[in-house]
Amino acid sequence: MTTEMDIGVAGLGVMGRNLALNISDKGFSLAVYNRHSDPVKAFAAHAQGREVAACTTVEEFTRSLKRPRKILMLVKAGIGVENTIAALKPHLQEGDILVDAGNEHFAVTERRERELSAAGIRYFGMGVSGGELGARNGPSMMPGGERAAYEALAPILTKIAAQHADGPCVAYMGPGGAGHYVKMIHNGIEYGDMQLIAEAYDVLKTIGGLSNDELAEAFSAWNEGELESYLVQITAHIFTVRDPEGQGQLLDAILDASSMKGTGTWTVEDAASLNAAIPTIASAVDARVLSSDKAGRLRIAKILAGPDPKDAGRVLAGFDRKALIDAVRDALYASKLCSYAQGMNLLRLASRERKWNLDLPEIARIWQDGCIIRARLLSRIKAAFAGDPELPNLLLDPSLAKDLAGRQTGWRKVVALAAEAGIPTLATSASLSYYDTLRRERLPANLVQAQRDFFGAHTYKRLDREGDFHTDWSATS
Amino acid sequence: MTTEMDIGVAGLGVMGRNLALNISDKGFSLAVYNRHSDPVKAFAAHAQGREVAACTTVEEFTRSLKRPRKILMLVKAGIGVENTIAALKPHLQEGDILVDAGNEHFAVTERRERELSAAGIRYFGMGVSGGELGARNGPSMMPGGERAAYEALAPILTKIAAQHADGPCVAYMGPGGAGHYVKMIHNGIEYGDMQLIAEAYDVLKTIGGLSNDELAEAFSAWNEGELESYLVQITAHIFTVRDPEGQGQLLDAILDASSMKGTGTWTVEDAASLNAAIPTIASAVDARVLSSDKAGRLRIAKILAGPDPKDAGRVLAGFDRKALIDAVRDALYASKLCSYAQGMNLLRLASRERKWNLDLPEIARIWQDGCIIRARLLSRIKAAFAGDPELPNLLLDPSLAKDLAGRQTGWRKVVALAAEAGIPTLATSASLSYYDTLRRERLPANLVQAQRDFFGAHTYKRLDREGDFHTDWSATS
Repeated sequence: MTTEMDIGVAGLGVMGRNLALNISDKGFSLAVYNRHSDPVKAFAAHAQGREVAACTTVEEFTRSLKRPRKILMLVKAGIGVENTIAALKPHLQEGDILVDAGNEHFAVTERRERELSAAGIRYFGMGVSGGELGARNGPSMMPGGERAAYEALAPILTKIAAQHADGPCVAYMGPGGAGHYVKMIHNGIEYGDMQLIAEAYDVLKTIGGLSNDELAEAFSAWNEGELESYLVQITAHIFTVRDPEGQGQLLDAILDASSMKGTGTWTVEDAASLNAAIPTIASAVDARVLSSDKAGRLRIAKILAGPDPKDAGRVLAGFDRKALIDAVRDALYASKLCSYAQGMNLLRLASRERKWNLDLPEIARIWQDGCIIRARLLSRIKAAFAGDPELPNLLLDPSLAKDLAGRQTGWRKVVALAAEAGIPTLATSASLSYYDTLRRERLPANLVQAQRDFFGAHTYKRLDREGDFHTDWSATS
Repeated sequence: MTTEMDIGVAGLGVMGRNLALNISDKGFSLAVYNRHSDPVKAFAAHAQGREVAACTTVEEFTRSLKRPRKILMLVKAGIGVENTIAALKPHLQEGDILVDAGNEHFAVTERRERELSAAGIRYFGMGVSGGELGARNGPSMMPGGERAAYEALAPILTKIAAQHADGPCVAYMGPGGAGHYVKMIHNGIEYGDMQLIAEAYDVLKTIGGLSNDELAEAFSAWNEGELESYLVQITAHIFTVRDPEGQGQLLDAILDASSMKGTGTWTVEDAASLNAAIPTIASAVDARVLSSDKAGRLRIAKILAGPDPKDAGRVLAGFDRKALIDAVRDALYASKLCSYAQGMNLLRLASRERKWNLDLPEIARIWQDGCIIRARLLSRIKAAFAGDPELPNLLLDPSLAKDLAGRQTGWRKVVALAAEAGIPTLATSASLSYYDTLRRERLPANLVQAQRDFFGAHTYKRLDREGDFHTDWSATS
């Protein structure tokens, strides 16, 4: 057996298998390993003729790698990663590079990095987005760790990444947990995008009465314009898929209870800890939570009253179907911009807090292809932050601000219609309130400050002079 | 010096001083201590004629207390509590009861309880609400720790608590950090109440054009009805207070940038970790965050466009001022109900997760007086959970559900008007979407599940049969 393989892949689930084939396609030799041997044998059979060492033991696996070793782990976050590290560690040497390419919490990655650095092992946390097809054909990758170790990985990563006109969709994110953090925010934005699309679907279907065919047509048309994106594209396709088990479209047979793994929740937790407002993303997480108990909702639906169904028609008066579709498109686009503004803002705050020195234009660049949130809009986000690195909020980019100005009439109409018709728009309305809060010279927060000073002597500031003031409110009038 | 004082108070800031005087008023002898001696001397001078040992050393303080000692700490959370524990611990003995009566994170309280239990010290976390006036005249108190220790404290706590027709506003909450946790949720609900009131103020002022006098009148009227509460009452009063430094009302001179301490943020973090949706409360925290950078907002206000101010008048067409005030009242009441439903739901989830066995009717009972969120509504919340301990959501209580049905037309109108007029209603609209999500038989979450299965093979469930299904979406149509 050769001991000169370029890179190793540990974990041959869907993602590991596809990434390994991608690496092999690009001309690198590789060793693969899996804790159970069946996937190793299956891979070996599938990869006949390729330069692959299919290993069923960690000894064999680590022995077959060129030094310093480069190993990508694609195993279950948490205990899966712990077990894999424990198995590999005795066989690794100073300078070897170990990459967790799953969705791990950035703080856990930083702990592991510290623990492994004692043995001279260079530990990496790398977010990989794009699902199985992305892994096979070119994902977007967000690696974080020691920069010199990244330089050693770069020749392989830049080849296997999605190739965009602006370059391969991978870049060094920063030290420590920066890579896993950026992937977490990517997923938070993904939650926002998906919920906003779901709300657009609901409004068009329930208020506008659009059929699945009409929805497919609307989303396809949107995908030709400023909303062009992977998620809008697959949504258009989803409306056309027939139910293999019955009549009609498959979508209508799917249970309306959504699941989630951890990254959306982590995003909300971390935003809270950094005092960052991400209402669109947080609403999207809430929407999944609230949808998940379908049995409970069916009981509740019998008890809580909604508007008369006729109201949906009444509130639509004078607003035709074409106008509704356009208004929903504008609401989706404007809300999506707010969601990205919140995500980018959180990246900046986290970067400042943790000294990661995250490069926002570079992050927007590598999200342009390969990943789930790839979208035409990202080139404009890249340009906005590249043009003004100090831009306090994405929405202040002059050209995006102009877009928002042009979309707001439809956006407001959709939120108003949905409220009157009883259609929940957690994320769309949170986005509009975010926008209106940001752009308001005078908010009612003065009343909150007065109340806090009234009951807790927390003091307040004045508009017209410096200092902290306290009033004995109950004694005065 | 006597060694027979009933209880000790460590920390003579505003809260400690007032609570000490309250204890003394109720006929208990007490020792007081403060790290700096000036407040001790000032207290001794003020408390002449009372049975008080004013101590400037921990030796003196701990020596003067009846055993097992009972000590309430009213010091700054975090380092203040750490320092006080470190100073007291060498002088405490097995069985002594040490109570942190500040706002500490429940997990920190549980860590301290574990550490001190090694020395046989019974550690308590007790939330105290009501501000300085509450401390002086009767607060609402939420103690958590060992039940037997609570029984030892109860004779004093039940006397110094606010006295409501349903009993004193204190009860044993549960073991460990249960007391501090319940106080944290109390504060989260307080954030929600305050933000909802601020939004009602904004809509009435900006869309309705109400003056401060008219606002005072509206809130005073509301305080006679179902919205009767401490916060509505003080808000009505705030509108009447003249600016001591200038013309007009003080409220108009206060900077609209709100501050916060940690409890709102902790509530959002913990809800995320327990997969609980609390959109109203989370929005209220977001609103404070977004308001806080006033200078940034002023720059943004110049760039982001809003609706034509004439629109506010146009959208009001056919809706007179009286109708607007009533609609805003209904929106505030219905949103408040949603906020309490979220808070109570989080209490239940946390109780289950941490085996605290929290008693929801009892919690609603002790919030009826003394604390900041005291409100007429709490007696109905108490009745709802007492009547049906398994009530899955507060909003399902038949009489509250009926209230919501009657309020929804105005509620929807307010959210729609505000969206069209450019007034942010983060919390009011989040509450409405929460309501509409809960009561909807069919949500668009089926689309989210289809997307997840499309790009990540996450599988979906069907409406018509059991099992987990996966479709190769891109291959089918």
